[in-house]
Amino acid sequence: MTLQDCQARDAAHPLRALRELFQIPPGVIYLDGNSLGVLPKAAPARIAQVVEKEWGQGLIRSWNEAGWFTMPQRLGDKLGPWIGANAGEVVVTDSTAVTRYKERHAALTIARNWDAKRTTIVSERSNFPTDNYIAEGLARERGFALKLVRAEEIVASLDATTAVLMLTQVNYRTGAMHDMAALSQAAHAAGALAVWDLAHSAGAVEVKLNADGADFAVGCGYKYLNGGPGAPAFLWVHPRHQDQALQPLTGWYGHAAPFAFIPQYEPVKGISQYLCGTPPVISTAAFECGLDGFEASMPLGGMNALREKSLALTDLFIDLVETRCGAHGLSLITPREHKKRGSQICLNHPTHGYAIMQAMIARGVIGDYRKGDAQTPDIIRFGFAPLYIGFEDIWNAVEHLRAVMDEREYLRSEFNAVKAVT
Amino acid sequence: MTLQDCQARDAAHPLRALRELFQIPPGVIYLDGNSLGVLPKAAPARIAQVVEKEWGQGLIRSWNEAGWFTMPQRLGDKLGPWIGANAGEVVVTDSTAVTRYKERHAALTIARNWDAKRTTIVSERSNFPTDNYIAEGLARERGFALKLVRAEEIVASLDATTAVLMLTQVNYRTGAMHDMAALSQAAHAAGALAVWDLAHSAGAVEVKLNADGADFAVGCGYKYLNGGPGAPAFLWVHPRHQDQALQPLTGWYGHAAPFAFIPQYEPVKGISQYLCGTPPVISTAAFECGLDGFEASMPLGGMNALREKSLALTDLFIDLVETRCGAHGLSLITPREHKKRGSQICLNHPTHGYAIMQAMIARGVIGDYRKGDAQTPDIIRFGFAPLYIGFEDIWNAVEHLRAVMDEREYLRSEFNAVKAVT
Repeated sequence: MTLQDCQARDAAHPLRALRELFQIPPGVIYLDGNSLGVLPKAAPARIAQVVEKEWGQGLIRSWNEAGWFTMPQRLGDKLGPWIGANAGEVVVTDSTAVTRYKERHAALTIARNWDAKRTTIVSERSNFPTDNYIAEGLARERGFALKLVRAEEIVASLDATTAVLMLTQVNYRTGAMHDMAALSQAAHAAGALAVWDLAHSAGAVEVKLNADGADFAVGCGYKYLNGGPGAPAFLWVHPRHQDQALQPLTGWYGHAAPFAFIPQYEPVKGISQYLCGTPPVISTAAFECGLDGFEASMPLGGMNALREKSLALTDLFIDLVETRCGAHGLSLITPREHKKRGSQICLNHPTHGYAIMQAMIARGVIGDYRKGDAQTPDIIRFGFAPLYIGFEDIWNAVEHLRAVMDEREYLRSEFNAVKAVT
Repeated sequence: MTLQDCQARDAAHPLRALRELFQIPPGVIYLDGNSLGVLPKAAPARIAQVVEKEWGQGLIRSWNEAGWFTMPQRLGDKLGPWIGANAGEVVVTDSTAVTRYKERHAALTIARNWDAKRTTIVSERSNFPTDNYIAEGLARERGFALKLVRAEEIVASLDATTAVLMLTQVNYRTGAMHDMAALSQAAHAAGALAVWDLAHSAGAVEVKLNADGADFAVGCGYKYLNGGPGAPAFLWVHPRHQDQALQPLTGWYGHAAPFAFIPQYEPVKGISQYLCGTPPVISTAAFECGLDGFEASMPLGGMNALREKSLALTDLFIDLVETRCGAHGLSLITPREHKKRGSQICLNHPTHGYAIMQAMIARGVIGDYRKGDAQTPDIIRFGFAPLYIGFEDIWNAVEHLRAVMDEREYLRSEFNAVKAVT
């Protein structure tokens, strides 16, 4: 394998043209699309239209005339095919953390209505912290217990007290992927609901919510979906649950008659009852441009083809790191098995993880770093968004990593001054 | 009073130059800034910078380098002077409805911690419905009762069972303004907390949260503050309460160490613990442009001067409607007394309110219409944003209204076909 081989693979790849839909800054190899996706080239003009024409000229009339009012459902329907959901099952609204609260509050209500003895939320200790923070708060407030276990203990932890199994499909630190079908089935076998967080899987791996038996799912707009900084989240609720619980954020946007201004709250039927307040229109319009980038991949094979490319990219990255940087104490954290891998690769270095990533960023290779604790290693994290990352990027990124390691660049003082990391 | 008098008043007015900071569409007299404020002319370039440079080029680095991470606090500090709050007391985040939930949940916790027998939320029946929806949900969930009374019954309704008095300072339907100082004092005298909604008062009237003894306040970014469609809301919590309750939306953005990714939630001290998830950066940047428009009025007298102009505008509107459209059955709903009036004027027409407003909009005079019920009249609503509305606008708007009434334009069928109204 050589640089030329990688260039040839890119040139021949059927998805190659999609890269042209996105803005990649010159001199940057961007392997952090799992944290903030890149700018779709169509977004600046679309956002300018929303700002200058729809807001500036249309003003209040744009709620109807420019379709602002139905953006949460329109984007939800556009997103549906990418997560195995049908039309009318998804809405785009609020931040990811707020959406998690609504979703889990409702799931707990449904579980408790079924069986008041179901008082436990089972999740992973290594879940994304906000997932656990939100669950911890709900548990305390509503009389549930949050039981955090290791991945291999999940199935055995489910029992007649379990209300909800709450998991993130792809682990944010390790890139390990759960088997959604098997774990949803295990939850159902125990009489519990399966609640999934798709933050690191929507747009990165094939997600089949209906087919895999999920009950609820929430995900993030600004990572692989390229929705822009702080893009609103999405929420999917299985149709059999949508009208079974009143979610707690009972604002006018989820009302059966939002313009009747009647004094009592009456939820609209279906997924729209999970809406609460006025959506951030400009940020939501940016998210729609991200989704349009995915739509462009549909005739080229869609998520199937993207997943295939993602696995090829991450396989190559693992292979090159091991063959070209093998002597330097970097170890692979992410599972090798395709079925267990998301679209990111995480490495550990026993002593200099943070400084290695800083040195990489200084060279224009942007990934990120996540600090570990007593149980978990420090992590250097690289995300591979198959819409716009190519094989040449992988080659060059690993060559930079090799140079950082060979030349011990990570020992330089400027790479060891710790500051806020996002 | 003539058109020429109004033009002369505008020409001589010290705030006149501020109008040039905003985009007013040609042919439009915009009297709906109480629903969606106009576009600040600086916003398109600022938003393009956020999108093309900060997102497109800076990517993940912009969380630190472009100051995204501290936007909620930076905007809160900019807004503070306009609502009588100090630096470090306000954050800008989430939708108005979501923010109401966090705020009221916390206020109820504090009241209950003081005295478990305080189980009532007192509010106005004619409060903005979402205020009551959110309170209704919290009351049901947490074992409180929501007691809705008429404005004149508020003080008498406060007693030893009252946890929270929750009011909107300026009524969305009538434009009537409460006395924040007197009612906050009444709440405190009864041992309850005073929780205020500033949706129709921030940027429209002088708000003095600290001086008037408020405990909590929430408000809207996209109305008088010109923050753009679906702009995030703001939240103020009196410093004495900020660390007294854990708000329920315990996401990473309100954590003491958001990048430590520790498994347990630990709120940061101060107002920032009311943050939850990643803010919608592009929509938040637009809101900052709205606040900058207010800042420009500071050397010209700031909120004092704006309020004085607002009262002059609404006085003139009342006077002209009564003298020039007096024979047509329109009646004034908004209080005449300055101390009891916000920055909007509401009229009732016994039979054709909706069609009258449609006819006005067809003429380029944009206000809105709110349907009444058995107890309350239908309402034609005009908002007067003193930053950009002038006396000539008032004259011309009333002339259009006179023409609509004199010529019975409202009888035309196209103005009587009811559709969704925002």
